[in-house]
Amino acid sequence: MLVVKIGGGAAIGEGGYTNFAQDLAEVTEPVVVVHGGNAEFSQLSRQLGMPPRMITSSSGRVTRYTDAATMDAMLMAYCGKVNKRLVATLRAAGVNAVGLSAIDGGIGVGRRKPVLRGSEDGKQKILRDDHAGTLEAVDPSLIQLLLDNGYLPVLTPPALGEEGVPINVDGDKLALALATVLGADGLLFFSDTPGLLRDRDDETTLIAEIDAGSPESALAAAGGRMVVKVEAALGAIGRGVGRVIFADGRIDHPIRAALNGQGTTVRRAGAVAAR
Amino acid sequence: MLVVKIGGGAAIGEGGYTNFAQDLAEVTEPVVVVHGGNAEFSQLSRQLGMPPRMITSSSGRVTRYTDAATMDAMLMAYCGKVNKRLVATLRAAGVNAVGLSAIDGGIGVGRRKPVLRGSEDGKQKILRDDHAGTLEAVDPSLIQLLLDNGYLPVLTPPALGEEGVPINVDGDKLALALATVLGADGLLFFSDTPGLLRDRDDETTLIAEIDAGSPESALAAAGGRMVVKVEAALGAIGRGVGRVIFADGRIDHPIRAALNGQGTTVRRAGAVAAR
Repeated sequence: MLVVKIGGGAAIGEGGYTNFAQDLAEVTEPVVVVHGGNAEFSQLSRQLGMPPRMITSSSGRVTRYTDAATMDAMLMAYCGKVNKRLVATLRAAGVNAVGLSAIDGGIGVGRRKPVLRGSEDGKQKILRDDHAGTLEAVDPSLIQLLLDNGYLPVLTPPALGEEGVPINVDGDKLALALATVLGADGLLFFSDTPGLLRDRDDETTLIAEIDAGSPESALAAAGGRMVVKVEAALGAIGRGVGRVIFADGRIDHPIRAALNGQGTTVRRAGAVAAR
Repeated sequence: MLVVKIGGGAAIGEGGYTNFAQDLAEVTEPVVVVHGGNAEFSQLSRQLGMPPRMITSSSGRVTRYTDAATMDAMLMAYCGKVNKRLVATLRAAGVNAVGLSAIDGGIGVGRRKPVLRGSEDGKQKILRDDHAGTLEAVDPSLIQLLLDNGYLPVLTPPALGEEGVPINVDGDKLALALATVLGADGLLFFSDTPGLLRDRDDETTLIAEIDAGSPESALAAAGGRMVVKVEAALGAIGRGVGRVIFADGRIDHPIRAALNGQGTTVRRAGAVAAR
């Protein structure tokens, strides 16, 4: 079983996801797709007069402030346009796709942090009515039911907060949690880079393999956001996911290429022979 | 089994659908909800600089012109904001809701009519790239799978066209087709009127009952759009639906009230005793 995360960057969506549709029509094992929608979300927010407001916490973490009207825009972009356009493209290619948000069927439940503190454009702010939050639990029952009956679930944030309101959770974390709870053989992250790069401005510095048993050298070479990604991959492998691949979502046959070794593969050395 | 159609008028959505959530948390028989979203769709379209364009055909039928950008707005309003806000409200009330569009899982397939001819503001027009269409087939497999496993499906247009693009189909017709194919005991249409009115400007002229075995007097008293609704209800009853109710979606406990006889009930005389 594979979990395929398709990033929400503009460069991935501009081809209409037909590259993913071609590959998903050929894959023989069960697949769950998780997608983002950040480029569409930001564009819609700007069109509606609500440009993104980025808040930096004291620990340096950057969060997008999501009030109720911004959450409506997130629902429209992620669950409306991106999810249904992707499902339509997949179905046209012969894939039996079903689009869902993590709100549906109790798939993803999280905790909202209504008060957001941090700096915005260098000024300290306390913003209330925030709808961003942390994913706390994933219930795979509905996803498993669909897989068992020949459907390919296409899942998107947001999740549902404890008080019954939608909350903005991270799509990568949703994919990680789902892959872990489903015991996926592979978790594939597609974005607008060829994989994990030693120098993020130089695509020739791609790291092809990271041994989950001795990741020290890879972590030493990694910087910034890449450390977070590698640590998340190591955590998933530690909880039973077969391998995690970071690969390019802009190319033809992205899934086939990733499974054939393009991009960055994180796994335990020797795990290939065992599978 | 009940099919509950919640209209997309502004007056129904402004309470956040909590009135429906309370009733759906109490209903013991299986329910499928179908909803509209026209007020949200029109509002979003205007905000995005695409006000609704209504085209009147030579036979007097009024269609909303739906180009590709307008279809994106429809996906955002119906499948994003309305569907997920409704699902979140239902889940918060304890209902095991799952939101879907008719695109998902092949539920609704239709035929697109890409060229729209008619008059707009009194001028004859030929508009191309229209994404409105006619619902041709409903496959209840996914809906039935969800019902069998304790979920309450919440379904919205659009459907999927033969070429794999989303098409704008009528929500009432989607509910009618679904109720027919599922053999529903009841099909309830909720809108912003108390039911079918002899005089649409006078809520005291409500027709409480129409005998599907002898509807002539009701049809004779009806005018305009009401004839279409009564004929659709008669058709559904002729194909096995137990009863069709037109009722008020703005009130507290709308489903309970409708099942208890408020609004307009269409059924075969004697069918009450038989059930």
